[in-house]
Amino acid sequence: MTVPYEQLKNDFTILQQTVNDEPLVYLDNAATTQKPESVLRALELYYQTSNANVHRGVHTLAERATAQYEGTREKVRRFINARETAEVLYTRGTTTGLNWLAKSLGDLIIEPGDEIVISFMEHHSNIIPWQQVAQNKQATLKYIELTEDGQLDMADVRAKITEKTKIVSLAHVSNVLGVVNPIKEITQMVHDVDGVMVVDGAQAVPHMPVDVQDLNADFYAFSGHKMLAPTGIGVLYGKRSWLEKMEPQEFGGEMIDFVGLQDSTWKELPWKFEAGTPNIAGAIGLGAAIDYLEKVGMREIMDHEQNMMAYVMPRLEEIDGLTIFGPKNIEDRTGVIAFNIDGIHPHDVATAMDMEGVAVRAGHHCAQPLMNYMNQPATARASFYLYNTLEDADQFIQALKATKEFFLNGLN
Amino acid sequence: MTVPYEQLKNDFTILQQTVNDEPLVYLDNAATTQKPESVLRALELYYQTSNANVHRGVHTLAERATAQYEGTREKVRRFINARETAEVLYTRGTTTGLNWLAKSLGDLIIEPGDEIVISFMEHHSNIIPWQQVAQNKQATLKYIELTEDGQLDMADVRAKITEKTKIVSLAHVSNVLGVVNPIKEITQMVHDVDGVMVVDGAQAVPHMPVDVQDLNADFYAFSGHKMLAPTGIGVLYGKRSWLEKMEPQEFGGEMIDFVGLQDSTWKELPWKFEAGTPNIAGAIGLGAAIDYLEKVGMREIMDHEQNMMAYVMPRLEEIDGLTIFGPKNIEDRTGVIAFNIDGIHPHDVATAMDMEGVAVRAGHHCAQPLMNYMNQPATARASFYLYNTLEDADQFIQALKATKEFFLNGLN
Repeated sequence: MTVPYEQLKNDFTILQQTVNDEPLVYLDNAATTQKPESVLRALELYYQTSNANVHRGVHTLAERATAQYEGTREKVRRFINARETAEVLYTRGTTTGLNWLAKSLGDLIIEPGDEIVISFMEHHSNIIPWQQVAQNKQATLKYIELTEDGQLDMADVRAKITEKTKIVSLAHVSNVLGVVNPIKEITQMVHDVDGVMVVDGAQAVPHMPVDVQDLNADFYAFSGHKMLAPTGIGVLYGKRSWLEKMEPQEFGGEMIDFVGLQDSTWKELPWKFEAGTPNIAGAIGLGAAIDYLEKVGMREIMDHEQNMMAYVMPRLEEIDGLTIFGPKNIEDRTGVIAFNIDGIHPHDVATAMDMEGVAVRAGHHCAQPLMNYMNQPATARASFYLYNTLEDADQFIQALKATKEFFLNGLN
Repeated sequence: MTVPYEQLKNDFTILQQTVNDEPLVYLDNAATTQKPESVLRALELYYQTSNANVHRGVHTLAERATAQYEGTREKVRRFINARETAEVLYTRGTTTGLNWLAKSLGDLIIEPGDEIVISFMEHHSNIIPWQQVAQNKQATLKYIELTEDGQLDMADVRAKITEKTKIVSLAHVSNVLGVVNPIKEITQMVHDVDGVMVVDGAQAVPHMPVDVQDLNADFYAFSGHKMLAPTGIGVLYGKRSWLEKMEPQEFGGEMIDFVGLQDSTWKELPWKFEAGTPNIAGAIGLGAAIDYLEKVGMREIMDHEQNMMAYVMPRLEEIDGLTIFGPKNIEDRTGVIAFNIDGIHPHDVATAMDMEGVAVRAGHHCAQPLMNYMNQPATARASFYLYNTLEDADQFIQALKATKEFFLNGLN
């Protein structure tokens, strides 16, 4: 990291506070991330100098807003190495992107008896849209099994992807297990049976370099708010050949060419999919977030998170009765770590940690099928990001020990 | 207005600039509005103190974010006088709300041969979603005719709403003609035939008091960015009895109760419709915008716009060759005024006005069927809001005269 990571926290005003009289340690980054001042300043600057509706105006503010909004699309394209900006669609977030895809691909290519393959580690946003397609089209939804340490079982990947497979949709990184899935390898298997590969990249793009051309997946969805950008903006990348064939899922202003009384035609890509006034400021904030991430470096962020894991995991393993879910090998994961402590409900863990200033999440993490698969009603989850420090890690471990002490005092 | 309107402009930093060496006069408020400093400060404060994902967390930031996000829902409920917050759904904007509705109501109640009624003055967002339903369900889409001065032809309203009518969807205020439609009266007619009344309120809620219980429409959609709030947030109001019966249109986190491998169940209202991480900051910004609007007073804003029209319209009518579209009677309209000048393309008008610092829009205003109906390929449009002053109006008229002089010099 060219910028020493101990200094990054200074760019995040929200992290300068105390919570319950302790320094705030924010370890809920898999849910959403904090925003650096540069992103807040970009939002403010846009609203104080350039705010207007995009595309349709000839006045100065409209031209400024359009240039910034479309300029950010080019920035996103470069960030994920898409071939062209026509392949970069703005969405409200990963959920909207996956919903559009499921509906549109479902209508386009799914016939009764076809198979859609996902895995047991998927987020609800990458499960329910496919359930809906399967139900509406009399198709079959299949789940790839996981190994003991929470990785995709590659033998089962090979078994589940068959000539009947039309769509495979997988998380690049699990929001619970932190595991990084071999998307490039699986994409090749999917293409070998002429299937479509969809990737939920919500937990990957913020945490590692992602090159969509190298992965070669047909679609890749992610969210701004998990990568330092404002809420309400996301991206759906898709290959032009597919996007050309797909129907838009929202209809209205901006996305049309000609509107007759009974029929309408659509604009060219990417605008065909972007109905109505978009989240212009959100897109511009996403651009500022990408600037920040690139300044630090995506490879450096990935290394930093793995360093944090290398520090945290052995210390967690020392705690009696604490179970870590997901890979033990640090190279196989990002900075997300789900765990439980015997005899303490994860909600109680999170509540007690909050008393120590440490923000962790507890619950099913929008992954009920995974919870069932692991025989856990819920887990606690700490998720690290670029601004977390070794001091944060120490406070986290310390709080965990205090929590265990507090609840299990009578049992020790 | 308890606050003198000449002073409101001071709250909007963007309006303090010059464009092409002239003071900026922003008259493109029907496209999007500027944001007061109080809204920008609310966004900043949220991100600097409270930002977290909502609903699922037990830590302090998550509780703060959830309280603010849900607190704004109550603010919105009060602002439009909905019966309960369960009837207030956050959306990305009016377009998303109308698309959800069309799809969901279409699936729920439209059978082949049924009729959906809209009007010739609708925005594309209130046309194309219904075209899609009509095409998919073999239903008929009918258009209510307009009178000479651009009002709904009430005789035709009575003729078009029949026992076959299942849905009527109308703009409360036209984004081109500025006309205010008699929604309450028409809603009664729709309910008399057991139809569903949908209102596109994008151009109404920002400009006048709106009481959804008094109007009694079944659904009412509007956008934050047209009422001083950030981009990417909107509201769909719906009566509980309908929302209970309707299926959500997006699926994922937040909106579920139980997720099995092949089937899932939904949360209660309003969350059933809100999949994925919402635009939390956008919602909180909307709350600050409502605070600002209420401080000024919605009745006062309406009066102010009508005063502006009373000042502007006679001065426009004095300009030879200038045609105003929509009602001549100021009481029938808001601060939107579409016009053309004989012999000058509206795009040239807007470009020349921009040289004088005046931002107006030109084009079809996402209302191609209306343009065809009026036999105009496009119009220029000036749209006023609470921060516009009589000085703005003077600069607008002056710029218009200069524009005409410039283009028609050789013809005079």
